[in-house]
Amino acid sequence: MTAVVTDAGSGDVLMLAHMNAEALARTIETREAHFYSRSRGKLWKKGEDSGHVQTVVEMRVDCDQDAVLLKVRVAGTGASCHTGRISCFYRSIPLGSAPSGELKLDFIGDAKLFDPAKVYKQP
Amino acid sequence: MTAVVTDAGSGDVLMLAHMNAEALARTIETREAHFYSRSRGKLWKKGEDSGHVQTVVEMRVDCDQDAVLLKVRVAGTGASCHTGRISCFYRSIPLGSAPSGELKLDFIGDAKLFDPAKVYKQP
Repeated sequence: MTAVVTDAGSGDVLMLAHMNAEALARTIETREAHFYSRSRGKLWKKGEDSGHVQTVVEMRVDCDQDAVLLKVRVAGTGASCHTGRISCFYRSIPLGSAPSGELKLDFIGDAKLFDPAKVYKQP
Repeated sequence: MTAVVTDAGSGDVLMLAHMNAEALARTIETREAHFYSRSRGKLWKKGEDSGHVQTVVEMRVDCDQDAVLLKVRVAGTGASCHTGRISCFYRSIPLGSAPSGELKLDFIGDAKLFDPAKVYKQP
């Protein structure tokens, strides 16, 4: 299922991730966000490398039970995006005319709170 | 791609849906939310049956460009869930102990703003 993560204080949408049954159970039990990486094929605890652990204040499920909403408090610098930003949604899409070719995106809330190269060890 | 829809006023998460390239282009051009129904295999404009059209105030894309965030104003009663509720996320999951068997969910913001049986024609 898809998990939408919002900041429990501001309400801002921070990121989207995926959960399998184990990630869901661990999150419910520990109150710390766990997800399932489809690309790596394994469970991961958010912040296990970066320290940006997400403590879940409230968790909701949607009408058809294929999505959950996590309202969290983020440890460390408060960043949830792997690029070092608070939110993964840091670029806006201009509206009102038919898109042609590549979309021109505007950067918003672009400040990086950490340097990904220093936080994530390269494999 | 996955689309997260939030209320432009309150910031609350209203619903999750999916977009294909056409749904994305129509939404950008018209400023009204269009999605792609994977179960019905077709494009749909949100509110085409119910009148709950979503006007997009702001649209963002995430870091890896597989999700968008739509901040919207909802027409009509203001409901976005097909059950008649404002948000699809009207049930919370109790936290803090290992889930066993079926999850016991608490209903929150459960008021129905419309009667789905009267709004959606049965096929």
